[in-house]
Formats: sequence, structure tokens, C-alpha cells
Amino acid sequence: MNNEEKKEGGKLYIVGVGPGNPRIRTLEAIESIKKSNVIVAYTTYAELIKDLTEGKEVITAKMKEEIFRTKVSVEKALEGNVVSLVSSGDPQVYGMAGLTLEYICRKGINLDVEIVPGVTAANAAAARLGSPLSLDYVVLSLSDLLIPREEILHKAKMATLGDFVIVLYNPINKPLLLETMKIIRENRKEDTPVGIVKKAYRENEKDIITNLKDWEKYVNEIDMITTIIVGNSRTFVCNGKMITPRGYSNKYEF
Amino acid sequence: MNNEEKKEGGKLYIVGVGPGNPRIRTLEAIESIKKSNVIVAYTTYAELIKDLTEGKEVITAKMKEEIFRTKVSVEKALEGNVVSLVSSGDPQVYGMAGLTLEYICRKGINLDVEIVPGVTAANAAAARLGSPLSLDYVVLSLSDLLIPREEILHKAKMATLGDFVIVLYNPINKPLLLETMKIIRENRKEDTPVGIVKKAYRENEKDIITNLKDWEKYVNEIDMITTIIVGNSRTFVCNGKMITPRGYSNKYEF
Repeated sequence: MNNEEKKEGGKLYIVGVGPGNPRIRTLEAIESIKKSNVIVAYTTYAELIKDLTEGKEVITAKMKEEIFRTKVSVEKALEGNVVSLVSSGDPQVYGMAGLTLEYICRKGINLDVEIVPGVTAANAAAARLGSPLSLDYVVLSLSDLLIPREEILHKAKMATLGDFVIVLYNPINKPLLLETMKIIRENRKEDTPVGIVKKAYRENEKDIITNLKDWEKYVNEIDMITTIIVGNSRTFVCNGKMITPRGYSNKYEF
Repeated sequence: MNNEEKKEGGKLYIVGVGPGNPRIRTLEAIESIKKSNVIVAYTTYAELIKDLTEGKEVITAKMKEEIFRTKVSVEKALEGNVVSLVSSGDPQVYGMAGLTLEYICRKGINLDVEIVPGVTAANAAAARLGSPLSLDYVVLSLSDLLIPREEILHKAKMATLGDFVIVLYNPINKPLLLETMKIIRENRKEDTPVGIVKKAYRENEKDIITNLKDWEKYVNEIDMITTIIVGNSRTFVCNGKMITPRGYSNKYEF
């Protein structure tokens, strides 16, 4: 295949559409999808953007078929199509951008690619809880499909020792979640606030604020698309909101 | 002051408008601002949302006047106005959400508040560099106005030892930036990619990809609104893009 020849007119957008509510999409994400004639998405996300894809070729694939989605997106773009490869949240954060750029690099493909950022689950979930992310934070995936669990646990430990607010994605592996939370709890106070957000900005959303002592009561609420936010040493709960202060009240009179 | 009486009809949106380009705003951010009759913003951001604020009362304030912005926003909302308190990026991430919720809490104020998330600089800058955030990352502010520098340096060290991709915000204090980068370099290879993004998605944007050995050559490019992204042990540069692979190529055939 001669990529140079096939490139003309082809373009690949790797698009993040935020947490799944049309109102939390960016204009750029909407425009990129509208400009595309081919849309590639994980089945659930294809459903969430149906309002934008009428009359377009929509290629869906199931979970764990990331490489298929990458290949078909690149192929379609090389054929001269304008393609949107769609992730929820931000397309980099455990989405399709990294894999696709890596694939293009390793195959030596020449293609016009644009990453369209989105509101990732950390920021979306945090907005539903109050303002837990008002100081330095860590975004950590608990999926051990591609990353060894020892590495994930080491990261959890360093994040805890650094007193970062910790945002956990993909907590599908319960034993790994339990182990991670144990490491955090060993180094943080029992009453450290923990926020659990399920389906932020979507139907049947559920937001829970608990703490490191009691969070396990809600373990059955936690699934693949739940985001968990563990506060740092300063985080507190007030009026049902989880707040990480940045230190203004130490320095200034309110 | 009887807050209960004054509350009627009043509402406070704490809104993130993303990196400053109207195309990277969410629909929810646009709608919140449009619904408001009072807008409170740092002077520069008020300029960036001028297209949305015609005919509204716009209250601007300079940097370091965060407490003034908080107070006036809350007061205006308590008087019955619909108010948007606007931050760039996401309103939690070194924006106005944390301080405002803390203020409302400490003063015992009863007010309808909604946080409207946005695309924060980490995700916006990363999109311009390729896909550096495709594995676990840390967001760390280098502003020591409110947080002791020892705490910032400790966080930088733990983030480095955890092999997180590290996103540095507010690198205005040059000695602190140099010290932070020194800590990172002591624990990472010299050729670890470093991305420097100035004014992502705005006029006169500048994107630089360098590495831990050479980044200091660009130190004079770095100002308050620059975002710096340091790769982890896996991050590489290919076709001018900074990519953090998530490990697919170890597990699957491309």
C-alpha cells in the first residue's frame, strides 16, 4: 500500500466526548464528528453520540477491541475519508489516542491526525462531589490488563506518600481495588473523605461521599465506569460537598 | 444578613471555560454563562469570553484577588442574581471552585451552587503534544504562594518515584522549577521527553518537545501560563509527537 498516494483528503480526529452527557461536550468535539463521514467507537459510546452521527458510516466494536478500532480508523482515513475515532472523556486518558499514535508510528504511516481533548472522568466526577481536585492530584487506572498489578500498587503507594488527591479509574478488579485502598488507608487518616461517582452527568447517576473507614460498605456499587476520588490530608466534607482547600484560609482573612 | 430570605432565585455557577479558545468550551459552560446576569472573572479571562457576556454585568479582578472574586460572586448570588464565576480550564484545578465552596462552608451560607467542569490545561496541552497522558499522571502546581515549597518538592519526588507522567502548572517561580526538574532528572533518564506548551489553542501558541537533558534551553519561554509535561519511563517521541504507550504492543500484535 502506498500511503502517500492514499493520504489525500484523509484525516483522523481522535475525539473525546466527555462523560456522556451532550452538554459536557466541547464545540470542537461536536464539529469534528460532524465533519467526519466515518465514525469509529466502542458500542456504548456510539449510542451516546447518536444525535451527531445520522447518515454517517458508524463502525462499532466491543471492549478489548481497541486494536481493531485503531486499525479500521487509520485504514479508513488512508482511503481518503474524514474519520472520528471517539472515546468518552478525554481521548488520551485510557482512551484511544495513545494506542493510535503508537500504531501510526510503528507502521511508519503518514497521516493527518488531530487529538480533540475532552472533559475526563476525574474532572467530571469531581464536579459532582464539590471541589476535591483543588490541589495536586493523581489519575490512576486500576485495570491490570496491560499494566502489572505490582506497578499499579507501587504507584498507589507513591501517590499516597506524596499526599496527592487520588482519582481511581476502571476499578473493575475488586481484589486490586481492595489492595489499593488498603495501601492508601495505611498512610491516611480513617476519616479521609472518599467520593464514589457512578455515571456522572448520565441517567441513573449516583454520587456517594464516604470515608476511608466506611467506603467498603459501597463496594457493590462500584463498577467499571465508576470513578473513585480519595481526598488528601486537607480534604473535608461540608454541606454535603467534598472540598480540598488550597490554603487561602491559612494566609488570608475570609 | 438573612441568607434564607435573600436566596430566592439566586444561583452561582462556578464555570470552567477550557484553555481559552471558544471551540474548547463545553455547551454547559456556554449555557451557564448565557443564563447568568452577572459574570465574575479574572481580567484576562473576561476578555476571552467577551463573545458571551454582552449586556451583562461583568466584574473583573486582577490576579491574587481570588477572595474578592469569591465574595462578590456569593454576595451577588445571595441578592438573587444568577452569577457565573469563571475560571479558565477546569474550575477546580487551581481555579475558583475550592476557595468558593470553602468560603460558603465557613460562613454558613445557604446557596445553590453548581460546578461546571472544563478541559483543564493538562488535557489541552497534552493534546497539542500527541498523547503523553495515556498512562497514569500527576497534576502538580509550582505556585508556592499558598503551599510551602518543601511540600511541592516532596510531591515532585513521590510523583517521580511512582513513574507518573508529571504535568506542571504555574511554573512562574524559576528557582522552584529548576529544583523540581532536578529532582525529576535524578530519577529519570536524560532522554525522557519533556513537552512545553504555551497558550494551548490560543493565538501565538508555542509547543516544544525536548527532553530532561535539554529542556533548560527553553527556560526563557516558560511563563505563568505555560504547561510542562514530563514523560514517564515509557514515553517516547515519534513523528514529532510525544506518546506514552499503555502497553498494547507488549501484549498484542499490531
